[in-house]
Amino acid sequence: MAVPDTDRFLSDLQALRAIGARGTGVVRRAFDAEDVRARRWLAGRFAEAGLEARIDPAGNVWGLRGPLLMGSHSDTQPEGGWLDGALGVIAALEVARGNPGVSVVSFQDEEGRFGATTGSELWSGALTPAQADALTDLDGLTFGAARRALLATGDFPNPSRFTGFLEHHIEQGPVLDTEGLVAGVVTAIVGMRQVTVTLQGRQNHAGTTPMALRADALRGLSDADHAIRTALRDIVTPASVWTIGHVALHPNAPSAVPGRVRFTVQWRDAEVPRLDAMEAAIAQALEQVAARAGFQIEVSDPVALAPVEMDGDMRRALSHAAEGVAPGRWRDLPSGAIHDASNVARLMPVAMLFAPSIGGISHDFAEDTDEADLTACLRILADAAARLTA
Amino acid sequence: MAVPDTDRFLSDLQALRAIGARGTGVVRRAFDAEDVRARRWLAGRFAEAGLEARIDPAGNVWGLRGPLLMGSHSDTQPEGGWLDGALGVIAALEVARGNPGVSVVSFQDEEGRFGATTGSELWSGALTPAQADALTDLDGLTFGAARRALLATGDFPNPSRFTGFLEHHIEQGPVLDTEGLVAGVVTAIVGMRQVTVTLQGRQNHAGTTPMALRADALRGLSDADHAIRTALRDIVTPASVWTIGHVALHPNAPSAVPGRVRFTVQWRDAEVPRLDAMEAAIAQALEQVAARAGFQIEVSDPVALAPVEMDGDMRRALSHAAEGVAPGRWRDLPSGAIHDASNVARLMPVAMLFAPSIGGISHDFAEDTDEADLTACLRILADAAARLTA
Repeated sequence: MAVPDTDRFLSDLQALRAIGARGTGVVRRAFDAEDVRARRWLAGRFAEAGLEARIDPAGNVWGLRGPLLMGSHSDTQPEGGWLDGALGVIAALEVARGNPGVSVVSFQDEEGRFGATTGSELWSGALTPAQADALTDLDGLTFGAARRALLATGDFPNPSRFTGFLEHHIEQGPVLDTEGLVAGVVTAIVGMRQVTVTLQGRQNHAGTTPMALRADALRGLSDADHAIRTALRDIVTPASVWTIGHVALHPNAPSAVPGRVRFTVQWRDAEVPRLDAMEAAIAQALEQVAARAGFQIEVSDPVALAPVEMDGDMRRALSHAAEGVAPGRWRDLPSGAIHDASNVARLMPVAMLFAPSIGGISHDFAEDTDEADLTACLRILADAAARLTA
Repeated sequence: MAVPDTDRFLSDLQALRAIGARGTGVVRRAFDAEDVRARRWLAGRFAEAGLEARIDPAGNVWGLRGPLLMGSHSDTQPEGGWLDGALGVIAALEVARGNPGVSVVSFQDEEGRFGATTGSELWSGALTPAQADALTDLDGLTFGAARRALLATGDFPNPSRFTGFLEHHIEQGPVLDTEGLVAGVVTAIVGMRQVTVTLQGRQNHAGTTPMALRADALRGLSDADHAIRTALRDIVTPASVWTIGHVALHPNAPSAVPGRVRFTVQWRDAEVPRLDAMEAAIAQALEQVAARAGFQIEVSDPVALAPVEMDGDMRRALSHAAEGVAPGRWRDLPSGAIHDASNVARLMPVAMLFAPSIGGISHDFAEDTDEADLTACLRILADAAARLTA
């Protein structure tokens, strides 16, 4: 295995950062002018590295050669960090330069200008081309119209040519940074479930309605939040999370007792039985709050994304490589966020390596990672790829 | 004193209801076509009753004769009930027909299309004519432009010609209806204070941020609601109220840990010392929640409306009259809502009589009151007016 060239890697990262740069951050929304420039630049760099460069009909950019697929995505959030998915694409390119068993990909629209992880969903068959083309961004532009900005140079590669997918990404959370670690080997991409809850109380005049005669929906929300905290206390692990992120209060006026509230409850965990137990506990807590205060309650059917297990052999390769490069300075951890690997797992074994996010910050111009951690992760990836293509 | 003619009173109420009728409800926004029609119709009915009809520059309609002023307002909410202020105007007209000591008024824009209680604010001097003319409705129309739809027929009457103001209104709350009573003698119009609170936590990814590392603003809100409930428990009376009515959560997305919340806390009570004690307790509860969870907190200066005491002699006249008409079936109670009497109290003694609101419903097409209660209240008003003009 050739030792990766960290200078060339860092220089490529900065060259990609310059396309769509905004101060320390980057704006490259899927198929906007800067994203198209970046994807054409990537295709050129792939070709220079001796890979077969290809842009497929979804705008995914490929550098095809060996059976181990590596990469991530180069599109960004509306206010994106410079590393995010770009890190995984450029790291894969540098590893591929020294390892002919490796192919590289930059998936399109991972950040969901149109759908969510659109490019890898399409390739994995989770989305049909017609469904994808009908997706619209917030201005009503369709994916089908937008993708004309980057003409395909070939078809989707046949997944059967690959033996596995290894994705490198920033953690987008505070765990590695808080613990002073260099890298994280992902155990699973957690599953997510979400319900929308409506509590219907009674809208009243905030001056004339005695406290004892109110059915105040804001109080319903705050009682629900407390009841869910209590109900989950004995079920969760430190890696489980739950969030009330969206709230719509009606009529939402200072002088009206709120008559109705609609809110989301979302929870994530790597284990299906725990997701089930959390669902039951949340439902019971909500029913009890509603019954106690006389609210009508509606809980939607859960939106559910199943957890995605990382492949055991690929995880072991990453773990051995991490222990070699940074002994005692890495850990196993679940991914709380969805990634392109979630889709690719339908086609082949997948694994992921996380680099630390300083302060846990991502999807923000301030996103950053120490250069020493970036190069350590590159070495881990190169070593793991060597083990997997040996 | 002449006995009031309940049939004529009910027939006048229905005639006014027909102007701007929408099903069981009424829409007469200050100075819209239906409000102007209603005010011209009122001026005609006042003249027919032998009163000196006058429309002043603010659009207040007067029926001038004796020193006891009675009335309320005939404009409505965007989806108004048929009684609300109209009841007090028509009841005053019927009392005036039998009592030459009575004058009648329908104030303009009590329901706040432009400001709030604009017509009585102007007459009481709380608002200058220039300030009033600059007020705008939600479409940007000014009070100054809108009032051209109803030309003045005279100037503002001199307040010194009146000895007191007696306002009849629906309760707009559930107390009388819940207790099966016929009427309520108002003790005071409660004072109101309101602050806007901002809690700044940390916005994070809802999948990647462990619970222990979050500063979740929705949790801050729900902890604040609970802390305020606990803090007020030993300070308030059953007539005190407080409300978190407006909430703005940021970024308000299902997959983001809320980073910031802004909300109003409003409280009302008839006693200034209790308003003060509630303010101190709320401020302390908010500070404790913020300190415990590491939030930055901002609390605005309070918006404050002082309580308005009802006049003792006028209250006694109403109480004696109520006990005569409906023995044991009336009670004293504070008004939790603001009324034109709040402004007129700057000029002269004021008192108020409430009729029951079925189900406590007001500002809604479904608003209603039993006919037997309407006529009982009319008799109470006529008797009280007789005592006050004897």
